[in-house]
Amino acid sequence: MVNITVFGAGLVGKAIALDLAERFQVTAVDNSKQALENLASRNTSIRLVQADLSNESNIFNTIQSADLVVSAVPGYMGYKTLESVIRGGKNVVDIAFFPEDALSLDPIAKQHDVTAVVDMGVAPGLSNLLLGYHSIEMDVKEFKCMVGGLPKYPKPPFNYKAPFSPIDVIEEYTRPARIVRDGKVLTLPALTEIEQVEFEMIGKLEAFNTDGLRTLIHSFPEIPNMVEKTLRYPGHAALIQSLINIGFLGTDIIETPGGNISPIHLSSELFKKHWKLEEDEPEFTVMSIDISGTRKQNTGDNDNYRYYLYDEYDTATSIGSMARTTGYTCTAAVALILENIITTRGIITPEFIGQHPGAFERITKHYEKRNIKLRTH
Amino acid sequence: MVNITVFGAGLVGKAIALDLAERFQVTAVDNSKQALENLASRNTSIRLVQADLSNESNIFNTIQSADLVVSAVPGYMGYKTLESVIRGGKNVVDIAFFPEDALSLDPIAKQHDVTAVVDMGVAPGLSNLLLGYHSIEMDVKEFKCMVGGLPKYPKPPFNYKAPFSPIDVIEEYTRPARIVRDGKVLTLPALTEIEQVEFEMIGKLEAFNTDGLRTLIHSFPEIPNMVEKTLRYPGHAALIQSLINIGFLGTDIIETPGGNISPIHLSSELFKKHWKLEEDEPEFTVMSIDISGTRKQNTGDNDNYRYYLYDEYDTATSIGSMARTTGYTCTAAVALILENIITTRGIITPEFIGQHPGAFERITKHYEKRNIKLRTH
Repeated sequence: MVNITVFGAGLVGKAIALDLAERFQVTAVDNSKQALENLASRNTSIRLVQADLSNESNIFNTIQSADLVVSAVPGYMGYKTLESVIRGGKNVVDIAFFPEDALSLDPIAKQHDVTAVVDMGVAPGLSNLLLGYHSIEMDVKEFKCMVGGLPKYPKPPFNYKAPFSPIDVIEEYTRPARIVRDGKVLTLPALTEIEQVEFEMIGKLEAFNTDGLRTLIHSFPEIPNMVEKTLRYPGHAALIQSLINIGFLGTDIIETPGGNISPIHLSSELFKKHWKLEEDEPEFTVMSIDISGTRKQNTGDNDNYRYYLYDEYDTATSIGSMARTTGYTCTAAVALILENIITTRGIITPEFIGQHPGAFERITKHYEKRNIKLRTH
Repeated sequence: MVNITVFGAGLVGKAIALDLAERFQVTAVDNSKQALENLASRNTSIRLVQADLSNESNIFNTIQSADLVVSAVPGYMGYKTLESVIRGGKNVVDIAFFPEDALSLDPIAKQHDVTAVVDMGVAPGLSNLLLGYHSIEMDVKEFKCMVGGLPKYPKPPFNYKAPFSPIDVIEEYTRPARIVRDGKVLTLPALTEIEQVEFEMIGKLEAFNTDGLRTLIHSFPEIPNMVEKTLRYPGHAALIQSLINIGFLGTDIIETPGGNISPIHLSSELFKKHWKLEEDEPEFTVMSIDISGTRKQNTGDNDNYRYYLYDEYDTATSIGSMARTTGYTCTAAVALILENIITTRGIITPEFIGQHPGAFERITKHYEKRNIKLRTH
């Protein structure tokens, strides 16, 4: 039987481990006893290892008998974890979405004869895959991705909930966003160029710039226009922008008569209460993708594709949509490696997979089995 | 020559001292050397005393030779300061706008044969005066006051500046607002019942409930509808409400990995930078008052009065409009006492002064001389 080690048993790691455990022997590694017990309550065949993965020897020990590794650790420890897995000589699919440049690990991945798929979630992930897929048959002139995970019943003032730590979301709101416009890479502040967009089944959402293009900027230097925008309920960006302007997301220590503190520490703590998804709280993932350009064959006819993904919290399995869509894209990549569809060594991006013959169709089938509906419209 | 002691040399206290020093011997008392030096640079005839007025003996010492006292100390120390001045046997005009009930000092003011005018600013102050004035000849059915002091060139996110400590403004935003509706005193949260109002020379402002009726609730139990609303640029109340909802104005200590703190302490500190009026920054005071009811004489004909006050930062004297309108209403009351127009002992409210024959006309003349334009429209 194939052995797979899954690092991280958070909301997404849990969805991945449960999905893989249907066919493979899964070992789940996490530092949280509670997260592991939660997983055990859902599937007793999963092997559990409580270990601190910031200690490299724990990484080497837990992947020793693995045929493949999945890394779903928090972003801040993602790069180092991936590097260790690669040095351990194991094929790996990574959805830690770490801030560092994954491509810098390409030489050592090749050197260790390892296939390391990175950013294999929804966006980045599926979005890159679709662009890669269509780039084969068309000269893409414009790529636009709008994506968000949101609570179905929004509550003011944020109208937002996050299945992960507030600090990661705040990072997304404060990190400058790189977009490609008229052939140039522009760096704009996040939360800018807010536009209102109407979505079926949801209503009005707002879309604003965030730094989501990542590897696409390097993979497609010839595409003159690429942008990734984050979706939220209207008003969210303005509120966050006000909090930034007031200074509440600042990292410098502020002296006050009641004590000294970095505002970001207080804000993260206060946000937690508002952003925490309740047990079984309905949420959804929405993604809209536009790819337009000219056909390579037929002497430059215009071509454009629109994709729409809408996925809701699954009440049958109690698995959230963000965990489903991210996790099952990841497990699709696991299948592609195990079935020897993807055999290239080095750092493998989702856009590379999209360009690989048969890969997109295999992933679509994987989604269908799990009731994730990606449709063109 | 008449001796007047002025407690507090802040923005308003300074305007009062300078105005009174034109005709009287003024002694200014403040704990801040800088505030006193600032005053001395404007008028060398003012006697300066640096003293901590939270120490009662300093109060008694500095009022000993005074014919009259003005108290323009911060709200939190206002009640105790006024009580001490009354016990010292001196007539006094108070604009500390302290949260305690001034009327509870009425017995000791009478006992010490003292006239103590309280709340003698714009609102409370002039607003009460106008209601008192018209209540003589009409049965008032409705009183509505909208008032605000604002920067002429608003800057997001707050679009607001304050000539006093942020904590006093936050207090106004968080203290429940008492209003009178259909003959009943209602207590509503502040920042509620936001309405947009168009003002000439300004444009759209928003008005929301704050706890500004104070003594009027006791003075006019027969008036069925009374409301005081604060004016701000549109969006301010929603932002403050969001900050309250998130928890940024909370007083309980929050534990964070970066230290423990009461959110209000951090917020006050951050607000300071945004709310500070720059040297010579143009600001204005705007007040709109509606008084309607039926005439007492002519068998109940309908009657209604609208007043509009708009006052700007005075570039000639470098005195702000909030200091001007508050300070010169206060010095008008000083004149009324010194000219023996108001001789009643006890706690004297501005609405009482408005009902006093000749007082309103005297105050109007006082305003005119200082170029404060109160007009009916």
